[in-house]
Amino acid sequence: MIILGIDPGLATLGYGVIEVENDKRRVIQYGTLNTPAGQPMPYRLQAISRGMNQLMDIYQPDDVAFEELFFSKNITTGMAVSMARGVALVAVVERTPNLYEYTPMQIKQAVTGYGGADKHQVQMMVKMLLNMKEIAKPDDAADALAVALTHANSMHAKHLFKIQ
Amino acid sequence: MIILGIDPGLATLGYGVIEVENDKRRVIQYGTLNTPAGQPMPYRLQAISRGMNQLMDIYQPDDVAFEELFFSKNITTGMAVSMARGVALVAVVERTPNLYEYTPMQIKQAVTGYGGADKHQVQMMVKMLLNMKEIAKPDDAADALAVALTHANSMHAKHLFKIQ
Repeated sequence: MIILGIDPGLATLGYGVIEVENDKRRVIQYGTLNTPAGQPMPYRLQAISRGMNQLMDIYQPDDVAFEELFFSKNITTGMAVSMARGVALVAVVERTPNLYEYTPMQIKQAVTGYGGADKHQVQMMVKMLLNMKEIAKPDDAADALAVALTHANSMHAKHLFKIQ
Repeated sequence: MIILGIDPGLATLGYGVIEVENDKRRVIQYGTLNTPAGQPMPYRLQAISRGMNQLMDIYQPDDVAFEELFFSKNITTGMAVSMARGVALVAVVERTPNLYEYTPMQIKQAVTGYGGADKHQVQMMVKMLLNMKEIAKPDDAADALAVALTHANSMHAKHLFKIQ
């Protein structure tokens, strides 16, 4: 099965596509959708919408896993990222009901076995678990691969993590 | 010209459609898009997206005016409404670049001449300015008509209020 992991954001949305077969996990693709800060908000959101639609078209994921948003102390950022997240969720749900989300702590726990792991430890484990030659760059793409891996490891309990 | 006013929300999104010709303003339609609280978030956002697309199809507005979101003290609500707003903005910008937004104070000022007017005063003025027999119900629809009227009265300066 194909899992698309998403680290939602407005300026940078990370994505990671993996294939899971029994115990095997393989990277298919990863990267980011970027929207320039100078553009009006509606166009940035439109770019997120179109990019997400393209990802859904190209990779036809069976399941899509989002990293959960935490409220940012910067209110403006929190609202901007929420808008981008809403747009991304709609692009997904138009194609599949299989949407899941995981908190940063769940992701660290699933990938490293330790909920307090730091970013570098998570990235090293993602590289190892996916047999990659290098750490995925940028960070947002690595985070997206981590949430996809988290979903791969949590599928037996996935009803727990369906986005409500 | 046709103006679509939007009072964004997740549980209830108000809309108001008016026609403006010189000094004349006429109501075409108003109402709300509602999404049930018990549904998963992605489906509620999808319903907002589809409803907004229908409004754009049916009324083919020249300009669309949004009431600006203020950050809610309830963080969860603020993020939910931001998601709905992002989805609504994308539905609009796929059809027209003519998106505008106005703060509650600008709306009160434009409709009643007084930025500190209360909700009932705004609703009474909306009724009068649009020659309606009764106050528009529910409140979200009346608010949407108020933002559409605000845009009608601000169009000479509308570059100021384009959504950035």
